[in-house]
Amino acid sequence: MTRIAYVNGRYVPHGQAAVHIEDRGYQFADGVYEVIAIHQGNMVDEKGHLDRLDHSLGELQIAWPMSRQSLQVVMREMILRNRITNGMIYFQISRGVATRNHAFPDDTESALVMTVRHSPPLDQTAAAVTGVNVITIPDIRWARRDIKSISLLPNVLGKQQASEAGAYEAWMIDGDGNITEGTSSNAWIVNKDGDLITRDASHAILNGITRLAVLDLARAEGVTFVERPFDVAEAKDAREAFVTSTTSLVKPVVRIDGDPVGNGGIGMLTAKILSFYTDHMKAQGSAV
Amino acid sequence: MTRIAYVNGRYVPHGQAAVHIEDRGYQFADGVYEVIAIHQGNMVDEKGHLDRLDHSLGELQIAWPMSRQSLQVVMREMILRNRITNGMIYFQISRGVATRNHAFPDDTESALVMTVRHSPPLDQTAAAVTGVNVITIPDIRWARRDIKSISLLPNVLGKQQASEAGAYEAWMIDGDGNITEGTSSNAWIVNKDGDLITRDASHAILNGITRLAVLDLARAEGVTFVERPFDVAEAKDAREAFVTSTTSLVKPVVRIDGDPVGNGGIGMLTAKILSFYTDHMKAQGSAV
Repeated sequence: MTRIAYVNGRYVPHGQAAVHIEDRGYQFADGVYEVIAIHQGNMVDEKGHLDRLDHSLGELQIAWPMSRQSLQVVMREMILRNRITNGMIYFQISRGVATRNHAFPDDTESALVMTVRHSPPLDQTAAAVTGVNVITIPDIRWARRDIKSISLLPNVLGKQQASEAGAYEAWMIDGDGNITEGTSSNAWIVNKDGDLITRDASHAILNGITRLAVLDLARAEGVTFVERPFDVAEAKDAREAFVTSTTSLVKPVVRIDGDPVGNGGIGMLTAKILSFYTDHMKAQGSAV
Repeated sequence: MTRIAYVNGRYVPHGQAAVHIEDRGYQFADGVYEVIAIHQGNMVDEKGHLDRLDHSLGELQIAWPMSRQSLQVVMREMILRNRITNGMIYFQISRGVATRNHAFPDDTESALVMTVRHSPPLDQTAAAVTGVNVITIPDIRWARRDIKSISLLPNVLGKQQASEAGAYEAWMIDGDGNITEGTSSNAWIVNKDGDLITRDASHAILNGITRLAVLDLARAEGVTFVERPFDVAEAKDAREAFVTSTTSLVKPVVRIDGDPVGNGGIGMLTAKILSFYTDHMKAQGSAV
């Protein structure tokens, strides 16, 4: 079966999916993106992703390339054409093609490209759920991390540092010594009192859709949580830690900078939240 | 005549110049660029631009897509094929095409795309040399501005703010209240003692090739200069101000945030430096 990509109105074979070299996404990182998980043919938290997309586009004054409803149709068409049961949708929207000039061009059409890919089915057996290591690095990103922009070079460099250190993720530390988040995930700890803690949403972090879902689940299940900054010392002193993202789901963290978190195993509350989140994924429908 | 672009080894009509949607330049802003002026068929400060390119690529661990000498051949070929006498070369190099994943991929080939465009011939008559306005805005960029990366979204937003304010450029202010630079140019002032001042080169600014040329010219012509931070108050109290860049050359600044600089006209030293720089451009040869 030929893998199909979507590029500005056309469904094309993946290998031929191309954009003009003067697309502002390519020359200026002038665009935004979303990644949405597909579980059993349904998109997970579709509404949350589209709401955040609307925020990102609005902050950058980039027009929607089509209506929200049409975008939802394209996503479903891509799932069907690529016969995806479990996987990921990736799409990005740029300000469009224009002669190179920093300021916004007049009269360009926003560009939309989309890919989907298969993932293995959800596996939450003990063998599949393993803990990961994180390192800590300075947060060198720009000041508007709430916008899910494709201006991701600092995130790339941070993830590469993690990779070279044999870690799954790098947690980034701001000028006040507090952890903001991971390079492609949000950071969570559980302190000795059993409180769940994650950084409050502001311009300092990307407000993850999985983060929001976990907060909703914590609220519904009566788990005490607080959204506030925490520093590396508090993280290393925590009883449990984990990261959340569309691709990582709820992933236990067992070491920070080489030091074991708690007893070095997967935390009890982390396992519980992962279980809640798995049920949340399974409960998704595909209604537009 | 068909305008020709260069894309990964091929010379193609501009309208067909395209890159794959999984080029990391498009998905992650994982790439660098240079803009080089062409004066009377010759590239201006070619060596300086290629040296800086080497710095940018090295800092990001992106491989040269071809040897420096081959890149010089492609630039000359582009000037010839597009019959450019006066204009600009733009090229960017990304880490290449790979399945989307933040960390560096294995075994990708760096991607190279290039365009050239015509400009009007150099005109330094009094009517052509006019002063411009700048505004000041917070510097919200990442911490590695010395790398000439395509991760330019904050610069785009800053330039747009300038444009909406009817200004030519926005000077960006760091956390200490000092001006770093413009969104696509370096910032200069001349104080009441007649000293030429520009921010020192560090990770805080892009070390402009025109900036370096002006410093060399100042040295050669016996103009006193100092490289150090300066704040908005000092800039507004200055006798003269100007910006430098490949596209702006030496451009007099006559207003900062609406307040006139000096007597509101083009400064004497600024005019002198523009004259030196014009001679410098005219003296360029095309030897590889």
